[in-house]
Amino acid sequence: MQELVQRILDEGEHIGDGIVKVDSFLNHQVDPQLTWRMAKVIHDSFLAEGVRRITRVLTAEVSGIPVALQVAEQFGAQMIYARKSHSRTMTGTYYVAEAVSRTRGISSELMVDRRFLKVQDRVLIIDDFLATGATLTALARLVGESGAELCGIACVIEKPQEGGREVLTDLDAPIITLAKIRFDEDGLHVAS
Amino acid sequence: MQELVQRILDEGEHIGDGIVKVDSFLNHQVDPQLTWRMAKVIHDSFLAEGVRRITRVLTAEVSGIPVALQVAEQFGAQMIYARKSHSRTMTGTYYVAEAVSRTRGISSELMVDRRFLKVQDRVLIIDDFLATGATLTALARLVGESGAELCGIACVIEKPQEGGREVLTDLDAPIITLAKIRFDEDGLHVAS
Repeated sequence: MQELVQRILDEGEHIGDGIVKVDSFLNHQVDPQLTWRMAKVIHDSFLAEGVRRITRVLTAEVSGIPVALQVAEQFGAQMIYARKSHSRTMTGTYYVAEAVSRTRGISSELMVDRRFLKVQDRVLIIDDFLATGATLTALARLVGESGAELCGIACVIEKPQEGGREVLTDLDAPIITLAKIRFDEDGLHVAS
Repeated sequence: MQELVQRILDEGEHIGDGIVKVDSFLNHQVDPQLTWRMAKVIHDSFLAEGVRRITRVLTAEVSGIPVALQVAEQFGAQMIYARKSHSRTMTGTYYVAEAVSRTRGISSELMVDRRFLKVQDRVLIIDDFLATGATLTALARLVGESGAELCGIACVIEKPQEGGREVLTDLDAPIITLAKIRFDEDGLHVAS
């Protein structure tokens, strides 16, 4: 997606260790118009893959929420964000999976209330980054536990050097990403 | 907003201590279509109050993000979610304010990168609940520190018994909420 590639080139900041900071439009400040257009590309790409009826779009709090919400809206689906911490309102029973976040350097549990994922659901998993695939794998385990069908995975930015796409191969679901970034001795490279 | 009142009556669960669980459409599973209509009512209500040009919509992660995103989209503004925890990408300098969350029983810091709030900005603050006003007061302090203008506050659900509206009076900004809930010996009451 050329518009996204240009935003990453213009605003992304390589802060070392393979981490690019895109907090001016993706994960602290969020550009709603860009988010809507990214969600439309994801929606249309899944249609082109033959993925049509979707009932749930699943992400992990926090930074996947804006894109997941807009993709869910376009599919007429409900959006679910897996919780990472307990709150007093979490009185139900939950699917739980462990994920290790590289940017935060911590391992966390992802939790989804069992009321919201059922065996008849058709699910897309959405997140901001496809890097090592750890969060996405954990989300896929939640879907698997519920018996729902995983119909596809989409992320805004892919880091092919971290191998996440290979990790996700076993899931046998189409994977869509909107921009790929890689780093070498010349710095940051961005492509569609 | 009658549609929201009905959803709270149908799906809200009073789990004791004045806390109502609305995780089937507001803060775990999210209904994107309802979210869009709530954002439209908030947008139109601010227009009716004479609040027109808005450049930033500010919320706190996590549960305010969906509504804040949709309100920002309708105003053509950027959305910012204040961060509650540090991540490795937070390399800038931040406005910081302390807030105490009642549902989580913890005090937390809210942080906004100084690049995203400037003295010329016109800001709306959006969150899911207006209860004690602690989170909203902290967000307002972030806006105040930046020198930007606070133009209004909107929340999805208000709990008038917790006095948040009175706490926010000094901010001298219009306050819009879409449903009011209160508890007495007969249980949960919901009104527009």
